[in-house]
Amino acid sequence: MLKIKIQIYCGDQIAMGPGKADLLDAIASEGSISAAGRKLGMSYRRCWLLVDVMNRCWDAPLVATSTEGATLTGRGVEVLRDYRAVQKLVGSAGAKAGQALEQHVRAEPLAAQE
Amino acid sequence: MLKIKIQIYCGDQIAMGPGKADLLDAIASEGSISAAGRKLGMSYRRCWLLVDVMNRCWDAPLVATSTEGATLTGRGVEVLRDYRAVQKLVGSAGAKAGQALEQHVRAEPLAAQE
Repeated sequence: MLKIKIQIYCGDQIAMGPGKADLLDAIASEGSISAAGRKLGMSYRRCWLLVDVMNRCWDAPLVATSTEGATLTGRGVEVLRDYRAVQKLVGSAGAKAGQALEQHVRAEPLAAQE
Repeated sequence: MLKIKIQIYCGDQIAMGPGKADLLDAIASEGSISAAGRKLGMSYRRCWLLVDVMNRCWDAPLVATSTEGATLTGRGVEVLRDYRAVQKLVGSAGAKAGQALEQHVRAEPLAAQE
């Protein structure tokens, strides 16, 4: 199975990647960082740290927090949409190009030798 | 900066990825697993384990070892070539699609708040 992971770096920090994109989706649907964390099985602290990195890596914050909860900003909506578009486009290119490889890979590895 | 990582899975093992492809290149140029390890700054044991996984994940071994050293098999040459082709193709697709994103990412993250 071919997996393609797309990461946008900001210096040595990851500004966007598969986990952060899923977190943005969850914040958009759940309306708070803690509810997004519960949905994804991640601690509040871990989610908060990811949001903090995202908010420092782009030219505008991606997530706005208030006493009411958390929402995506305009830039957050845009970056998430563009990231999903890159995933889709690159995924199709990869699935096509990877056919020659997938033809030769086993479903499961042979057992390790003693 | 946009980075795209392509991995081919075999069950839950990674049959091919950026590190394994670089190891195959180094084995092809250096002629042994230990010399490839020195070139890449990796221990012999680590290289040997990666070769062992690769050799168990494909329908034929990718690396042949003997008392003379190590070489890529026909399948090894083919898989490496196909993997590099997928990287190149997916890389061009990604670079183009990622332009909208890269326009908004900072060169360095803002400093973390106290």
